[in-house]
Amino acid sequence: MSNMLSIAETAAWLKLRDGFLILTHRRPDGDTVGCAGALAQGLREAGKAAYVLRNPEITPRYLRFVEDYHAPEGYEPENVVIVDTASRDLLPRNGDKFDGAISLCIDHHPSNALYAENTCLGGDYASCGEIIYEILLALSGNISARSAERIYAAVSTDTGCFAFANTTANTLRVAALAIEAGAPHRELNRLLFRTRTLGRIKIEGAIYSNLEFHFGGAVAISIITRDMMKSAGADEDDIDDISSLPGSVKGVSTGITIREMTSANDCKVSVRTSPLVDAHAICDLFGGGGHSMAAGFTINKSALEVREALLEALEGFFPNVDKP
Amino acid sequence: MSNMLSIAETAAWLKLRDGFLILTHRRPDGDTVGCAGALAQGLREAGKAAYVLRNPEITPRYLRFVEDYHAPEGYEPENVVIVDTASRDLLPRNGDKFDGAISLCIDHHPSNALYAENTCLGGDYASCGEIIYEILLALSGNISARSAERIYAAVSTDTGCFAFANTTANTLRVAALAIEAGAPHRELNRLLFRTRTLGRIKIEGAIYSNLEFHFGGAVAISIITRDMMKSAGADEDDIDDISSLPGSVKGVSTGITIREMTSANDCKVSVRTSPLVDAHAICDLFGGGGHSMAAGFTINKSALEVREALLEALEGFFPNVDKP
Repeated sequence: MSNMLSIAETAAWLKLRDGFLILTHRRPDGDTVGCAGALAQGLREAGKAAYVLRNPEITPRYLRFVEDYHAPEGYEPENVVIVDTASRDLLPRNGDKFDGAISLCIDHHPSNALYAENTCLGGDYASCGEIIYEILLALSGNISARSAERIYAAVSTDTGCFAFANTTANTLRVAALAIEAGAPHRELNRLLFRTRTLGRIKIEGAIYSNLEFHFGGAVAISIITRDMMKSAGADEDDIDDISSLPGSVKGVSTGITIREMTSANDCKVSVRTSPLVDAHAICDLFGGGGHSMAAGFTINKSALEVREALLEALEGFFPNVDKP
Repeated sequence: MSNMLSIAETAAWLKLRDGFLILTHRRPDGDTVGCAGALAQGLREAGKAAYVLRNPEITPRYLRFVEDYHAPEGYEPENVVIVDTASRDLLPRNGDKFDGAISLCIDHHPSNALYAENTCLGGDYASCGEIIYEILLALSGNISARSAERIYAAVSTDTGCFAFANTTANTLRVAALAIEAGAPHRELNRLLFRTRTLGRIKIEGAIYSNLEFHFGGAVAISIITRDMMKSAGADEDDIDDISSLPGSVKGVSTGITIREMTSANDCKVSVRTSPLVDAHAICDLFGGGGHSMAAGFTINKSALEVREALLEALEGFFPNVDKP
């Protein structure tokens, strides 16, 4: 069992130690990367040695927030800290040797498996960035512009620029404080939320034109084939967050994305629902799971077979609507 | 010349008076409508009679913020207040009889023509909603949930859910305070930013697939014909804000939208630029104008003729790039 630390205790714990290596999670997003960069910067300002482990899966979009802190070859840390990472399964691909050797985990996922020696867990926070903000404030009494830039990136990306349902008043307040501390929010908003690649535009167009509606328009299904990805020239970066598209259509309560992965018989399914439909329960029928409004599964079937099976399963969830 | 009032003076002015009618601007957006609803609610809580003039151009999206305050037939106001409206030209279509009879204008446009008897102008505010928030606080010391809902709608829509370049720390702080006062931000974000009609999706798809790039990819031009609107089943609500699309493509500094209006020889052109290109100067060549990063004009030419003329004019702005 992990030793639970408050914000103040975490700051005190950091103050007493040195020689930090900070880890981000597998398939890194803006929150884990922004937190790692902000924490490294804040610890350096407090006179500590602090580095970030280079994450082999990082995309160009997020590299700028950590590249100045990447650990040199052969760096031997005294204390390993991981941010925004709920379980050991999510250690970065090159993080195996730290499994069982994490001194501190700072996280906001209520499902955190408490796998680290010490854990600072804020399950009510929309983003881990909001926790890092409070820790840095407790550590040194102020937030530098460089830390603020990374905190802004963390809180804004994890809340879809403050539009997702997880956003709270605290998220907006931390973002305001980060701007006042010097975060270049105009540039970051443009980079993170208002710039779209041609690959993204083309794959979105293809998804929308193939969208199918069932159960009187309450269910929207999108199939993303490898051919669609190829002809759009889209890469992984371009389809970040794409599973929210089908559910964004007016009147849709359940948005489903079926994506062909390495072969036509290897599909990844994402289910996004409004509060009245249980996404976890749907995915549980196929051996998957997740949260009540966002869940998923992988399956060795063709996209059309999955679609068929899902439509059958959904009859149990939409009993009062005409069959598709 | 108008008598300029501070926030505190505006609150005091309102406190001394009664019998209010509140006007919104032509082609009403979330800011003007949210401000009108919030102000009407706040004045009623202060014991005043306060109504909003029904704006004939209001879209269903924004109706909920004012419908409870619409003035009954024959209401005779003692004081006419207008919100978020920079000039007399922007009085609502049914507001002619109030021209020259506006007692108070509350606005955030630096270009305000000071046409009202009294003006409360906050030219540094991203949205008029932030000013209304301060006025209501000065008026009664607190913000009710009903006012907060309308203030959240005002500040969030005018800043594109906090992603546009006009957003400031104050915008985010007022939004946080509105949430704490009871604004249902999750529901509003879903309604205002995360729901797309099929018409919107189809017209966006058509725009993106017809997008042309010139000057080495720095200029993107979109032509929206009446036929495209028709076959997408798109209405005015669906193309709200559409002029920002061409400029959102990676690498584009100048996004141009040419839209056919009532006939094929009646086009409306919008130019959106990054700081290095002067949108106003481009539009000035065609008898239009606006701001340095957002300007426009209307012209009696076909879309293809306008495109030709624009490309020629742009050579003066992109002299170092190969001709298209």
